[in-house]
Amino acid sequence: MSGTTNESKLSDDELRAWAYLATVAEPPCAPLIALVEDLGAIEAAKAVRKRSVPSQHRKVLVPTEARAAYDTADMDLETCDRIGARLITRDDADWPEWQLLALDQAETALRGGGPLALWARGPLTCAEVTDSSLALVGSRAASSYGDYVSGQMAGGLAEAGWAVISGGAYGIDGAAHRGALAAGGKTVAVLACGIDRDYPTGHAQLLREIGQRGLILTEYAPGTTAAKHRFLTRNRLVAALASGVIVVEAGRRSGAANTAAWATRIGRPLGAVPGAVTSATSVGTNSMIADGAATLIADADAAMALVAPDGHDTKPAARRRNTDDLSDEQRRVIEALPARGGLTVDEIAFISGIRVDGVLKALGSLELAGLVDGSAGTWQLVRG
Amino acid sequence: MSGTTNESKLSDDELRAWAYLATVAEPPCAPLIALVEDLGAIEAAKAVRKRSVPSQHRKVLVPTEARAAYDTADMDLETCDRIGARLITRDDADWPEWQLLALDQAETALRGGGPLALWARGPLTCAEVTDSSLALVGSRAASSYGDYVSGQMAGGLAEAGWAVISGGAYGIDGAAHRGALAAGGKTVAVLACGIDRDYPTGHAQLLREIGQRGLILTEYAPGTTAAKHRFLTRNRLVAALASGVIVVEAGRRSGAANTAAWATRIGRPLGAVPGAVTSATSVGTNSMIADGAATLIADADAAMALVAPDGHDTKPAARRRNTDDLSDEQRRVIEALPARGGLTVDEIAFISGIRVDGVLKALGSLELAGLVDGSAGTWQLVRG
Repeated sequence: MSGTTNESKLSDDELRAWAYLATVAEPPCAPLIALVEDLGAIEAAKAVRKRSVPSQHRKVLVPTEARAAYDTADMDLETCDRIGARLITRDDADWPEWQLLALDQAETALRGGGPLALWARGPLTCAEVTDSSLALVGSRAASSYGDYVSGQMAGGLAEAGWAVISGGAYGIDGAAHRGALAAGGKTVAVLACGIDRDYPTGHAQLLREIGQRGLILTEYAPGTTAAKHRFLTRNRLVAALASGVIVVEAGRRSGAANTAAWATRIGRPLGAVPGAVTSATSVGTNSMIADGAATLIADADAAMALVAPDGHDTKPAARRRNTDDLSDEQRRVIEALPARGGLTVDEIAFISGIRVDGVLKALGSLELAGLVDGSAGTWQLVRG
Repeated sequence: MSGTTNESKLSDDELRAWAYLATVAEPPCAPLIALVEDLGAIEAAKAVRKRSVPSQHRKVLVPTEARAAYDTADMDLETCDRIGARLITRDDADWPEWQLLALDQAETALRGGGPLALWARGPLTCAEVTDSSLALVGSRAASSYGDYVSGQMAGGLAEAGWAVISGGAYGIDGAAHRGALAAGGKTVAVLACGIDRDYPTGHAQLLREIGQRGLILTEYAPGTTAAKHRFLTRNRLVAALASGVIVVEAGRRSGAANTAAWATRIGRPLGAVPGAVTSATSVGTNSMIADGAATLIADADAAMALVAPDGHDTKPAARRRNTDDLSDEQRRVIEALPARGGLTVDEIAFISGIRVDGVLKALGSLELAGLVDGSAGTWQLVRG
């Protein structure tokens, strides 16, 4: 299933209830999810609006209090219709349940748990982009090295059919999205603002393209502005939706470290691209590798192998003809021979430290291999 | 003890015997070492010269056959006297027995074992340079990045009193030696040729300086030319003499990989400096880190900590004032406030999703911290 129209099988009332609930508390809000799971969306919305919930759910009152009286559901759903967005709820067939499960687990739920619903825009479904996917993240103030590697790696992943997930930001994120799009592949931007917002504004055109060919996801209702705490909250979704996270470039302090921490917390393989130790924008990635928190990832193949170690054979290393295949004695005889001119067998024996019969034997096989020539009375190297 | 003259307490005959033995077989030659250990140097030299050894030592005959009749001991010792070199034997007080022990162990002895003796030049003793020492090795065709990092790291090690051991080659080796010398520190060049040779010739001046201020070591007798198999043999000494090995830069195929393999084989900690994944001269180091063979090393401190993890506290990371110390609610209130202008408490409550009393509480502590100002009737951020 794909398309920009809302394909949820929910009734209008149900959808309105979900839209209200998706806005009434700042995500993440585990108590609200618990309420919806107990009562269903319609009853949960009523209870929150009336400030009257079952006693075991009273924790939901505080985080919903500030917005309970403001029902923007109709307006938000109209906005979605207008811009071709949809609301994917926990009841939706396309809800990425397996991927987001880790966020609802006890340990991480303390930090808020998973999203209640996801606003989505773009032709791809969640199922199409989460199966084989990698998040490429990193500094907004990326170096040209970081931009280049991010774009190349994203292109390699996209060509292999993998989806590239990132945060739509300047720098590494943008280069990753662009690399995937340029390769004609799948990319997903997870925003820290409303689905109708172009943030950052300089990425309006990029986000339009992702909306037309990829997928934009956010747990923030239309109109929500980007804010620092929302970036941190958004990062957990990037980590959870992807099968693994690669930090391409990160300085000593970087938001990417937060996404990396989320990956580790919820058990997603974490990779990092190394960089020059003289580069400020690689201090973070080098440090993650040095600490053992991340695996060093040099290219798209290594990135895929991080997530699917058995599914991706590494290419055989390029081999060139060399003296590694020679026996120790053959090699010592070769090394004893000068670049120009020839030597007698006795001279070779002395220089190489191999006795005469060993030298003769080695010279015989080296001659057969076309590496030495004894036809001039002395032995010499064959050029070329 | 230090000085360029021969300070061995051996008799002249003993020294001559050692010098003969040190030349009669191409190192490494474990059977010859076993013979010397059984018979002593003088009797061992006689036995080899006469081609008559105890039956359990008959393995020594083949590797000594080619050179047995050529006794260059007097000539070699005269050369040493002339250039201020000395022969350090296994009987010498300065023999680095502990460091070289690993090379005589069963597993590695199969590959030849340790050296029989070491030709040495320079004011430093082995004891002075092996206690706290690191080998910095890498490509001859180093990039300017590799040269820079090698020099910086060597300088840092030298300043901390550590000896920098390397192979005297172009590229990384040379930069490491120079970095240590420039910092007024200790450096050791382990050669793959005779102690009287300047190899590579372009490093004649550098080797002279090391000979005057550091230490040059080799198991090859005066006059021996450098050859490929000798570089490989020499590499095991670099690894053994150092407390750890750092590969600064290495391409896909590099001699440094051989030194790295030796480090692993004999249990020396192995580090590697990462580099751009777009750099051909960092393919080898990045790959060692990715495979888990080497630890990522970004600077001299990390290099020392690799060898002495408890002896070197990492410097506390630079801290700057930021919003990380704020509570979740405080941060959300801060983020709700616009860069210019102010908001009412109700507006902040809606935008942040925190109810009014929570907003007021957060604003109170933020005002005390000097981060927000409510004196104008609305709440706004404090600049600066």
